[in-house]
Amino acid sequence: MNVEIIVIGDELLIGQVTDTNSSWIARSLNKIGWEVMEITTVRDRHVEIISAIRQSFDRVDVILMTGGLGPTKDDITKQTLCEYFGGKLFFDVEVQKNNDLFFERRGLKMNDSTRTQAMVPDSCTVIQNPVGTAPVMWFEKDGKVLVSMPGVPAEMQHAMSEEVIPRLRKRFPDNTAILHKTCLVKDFSESALSEFLSDFEAGLPDSIKLAYLPVPGVIRLRLTGRGEDESFLFRQLSESFSQLEDRLGKHIFCHHDATMAEALGLLLIREGLTIATAESCTGGNIAHEITSVPGSSAYYTGSVVSYANEVKVNVLGVDPGIIEKYGVVSGEVVEQMVRGVQRLLKTDCAVATSGIAGPGGAVPGKPVGTVWIAVAKGDKIISSRYCFGDSRIVNISRFTHMALLQMITLLCE
Amino acid sequence: MNVEIIVIGDELLIGQVTDTNSSWIARSLNKIGWEVMEITTVRDRHVEIISAIRQSFDRVDVILMTGGLGPTKDDITKQTLCEYFGGKLFFDVEVQKNNDLFFERRGLKMNDSTRTQAMVPDSCTVIQNPVGTAPVMWFEKDGKVLVSMPGVPAEMQHAMSEEVIPRLRKRFPDNTAILHKTCLVKDFSESALSEFLSDFEAGLPDSIKLAYLPVPGVIRLRLTGRGEDESFLFRQLSESFSQLEDRLGKHIFCHHDATMAEALGLLLIREGLTIATAESCTGGNIAHEITSVPGSSAYYTGSVVSYANEVKVNVLGVDPGIIEKYGVVSGEVVEQMVRGVQRLLKTDCAVATSGIAGPGGAVPGKPVGTVWIAVAKGDKIISSRYCFGDSRIVNISRFTHMALLQMITLLCE
Repeated sequence: MNVEIIVIGDELLIGQVTDTNSSWIARSLNKIGWEVMEITTVRDRHVEIISAIRQSFDRVDVILMTGGLGPTKDDITKQTLCEYFGGKLFFDVEVQKNNDLFFERRGLKMNDSTRTQAMVPDSCTVIQNPVGTAPVMWFEKDGKVLVSMPGVPAEMQHAMSEEVIPRLRKRFPDNTAILHKTCLVKDFSESALSEFLSDFEAGLPDSIKLAYLPVPGVIRLRLTGRGEDESFLFRQLSESFSQLEDRLGKHIFCHHDATMAEALGLLLIREGLTIATAESCTGGNIAHEITSVPGSSAYYTGSVVSYANEVKVNVLGVDPGIIEKYGVVSGEVVEQMVRGVQRLLKTDCAVATSGIAGPGGAVPGKPVGTVWIAVAKGDKIISSRYCFGDSRIVNISRFTHMALLQMITLLCE
Repeated sequence: MNVEIIVIGDELLIGQVTDTNSSWIARSLNKIGWEVMEITTVRDRHVEIISAIRQSFDRVDVILMTGGLGPTKDDITKQTLCEYFGGKLFFDVEVQKNNDLFFERRGLKMNDSTRTQAMVPDSCTVIQNPVGTAPVMWFEKDGKVLVSMPGVPAEMQHAMSEEVIPRLRKRFPDNTAILHKTCLVKDFSESALSEFLSDFEAGLPDSIKLAYLPVPGVIRLRLTGRGEDESFLFRQLSESFSQLEDRLGKHIFCHHDATMAEALGLLLIREGLTIATAESCTGGNIAHEITSVPGSSAYYTGSVVSYANEVKVNVLGVDPGIIEKYGVVSGEVVEQMVRGVQRLLKTDCAVATSGIAGPGGAVPGKPVGTVWIAVAKGDKIISSRYCFGDSRIVNISRFTHMALLQMITLLCE
């Protein structure tokens, strides 16, 4: 089944907000074998919304729409849908009841603007929103369906999981299966890997496609199978995946789709090891990535974010003479940090970072983007220097990624 | 000047990657007064790319395109553009030279796939990419411009800042000014604020528009002015903004656009105070948000991420009897954590969190989404309990947001 997503909101077109709803929706639909053909992001403008709906309905039968449903004047989606699908807005007492309850639970008081949330087109089926005040609206016309959902991610996600996906599956029973198998590969550039796998790729059955999703130092390889007979497709895909595993051997460090932190967690669990982090330039982001994984408390004890040098010295026990001699961004300092946090938090493994995320802080020989990373497993320790040189946010994210990759590499030895 | 963005890549339509390029591009264009009308995300399919280009060019004169330029077989953008704009692919020695240099600097070896990166349409102007191997391609046809850029954010950002924006401004000199003024407001729901400001909004000049961008507990209010005479517009906008400031008074905690961590940083700098964090359930994310702000080392010393209870006891000095008596998710424990980190890292202020991000970990009376947050400024301490109840990632992000807001609120008292 093919679907399109329309995202509404001026704030997205001026870049004040990044749309994360589309990728969440796409991921959810992907799991049930539905395909998103196109995502269109438009402003809070009547004609632009109408035109986006028309063009999407020329291509597909289902549109999922998010945003533009706030109680304020710049949100005009409801009026626009009312015009497109016909009918008029009316005051829905059930929506009002839901919103009264919502406000009561949160201890907030209702006002006139909130009341406008209960005005809905009489041409749609309303799906109550228990986690917010903007109702979900299901429209049908000429065999095509449009579902309008709030732009607040938690509200959209709740509506999709609990109501919209089950109703869509019932409305459009489908039997084309889409299956994916993914693995994470290190030690290759994208182009080197593509060369290495060119004959494997050429020999794949027509129903199976290979895709490369590279990030620095790691390539996510995805095999996608598509066909009518799900169990045959599953066998075919599994066979191709096994061939890929044989071909790549130990270069694969995770045999399914996972974030770097999830892959690290699996390796730690497999070996029964614990880990801690000591972060300077990454400022808690490695800890954040690791603890974003459910169940990480099984192997992660904590972090010392030693942003100030005094914290490196007083809490982690780094020798101030070493900082003086080699500079705070040095292999010597990260090695002392990694040992310090292993000792303090009593873990088997540890990761430490010290670098210059920018825009300030560069010193001669150490430009913005320079980072020293140390990883330890028991007595074994490896420290490396990298140099990126992007913006602060990108640097922090790359330093974090490389630290996780370096720890994974040590665990895979 | 009106622009559209076309984003290419199967990985986006199955939700494996979230597009952050569009919002970055939109933000950059917004600064020079250009407007993004629509963003279209399409798959790596010839006909879909062609159709997206046709529809965009029906609306605007400039298309900025990202993605689909990798050296692998699933990236077909270059061939597609070659067909749309005419011409044929040829081996560009200048691109090859750039890529040789790039590989040399990174110490990588070139292979055949990488060589295909030097194949470019002879119908475009090539802009060299010093930070990657996919060239930037500038096409012109019938007075319209399409610029194709790599999907790797750092490469796209470099190309946009250094080459594409300067060239676009030269190619399309424009004199419609767009100006924004933004402030951050607390203590209101979106609907209550919209009611409170309804007469202010009604009295705004036609050239000025008010928008509400709410996140829990905070509303970002944006005034946008649009007109030919930039200095008149600036005065008009400043006057409306002053009226808004007068109306909202101390409910405004930041008088320009900023992240919560940036707003907190400004308040700390203004008062000459330092801060540390002690994080359990937020797992380093508060530290990460704070240190994402350039210059945060002026007020931020560090964090103890005390994920394991032993770290709370051994490093932060939380009384194990208190954990036993009240549970680890309690006001008593976060207050001891905040005091512990103030003492250990010697700061004026501190923030501590302990909660249940989920999916596991709920205990009777404390469902997933429960968090206790304590903030301290000197001797003064405030602890509060919140309950959200979303997915793990959303909970971590909301806990972090509320912790920053609670600290900001204490500093504003």
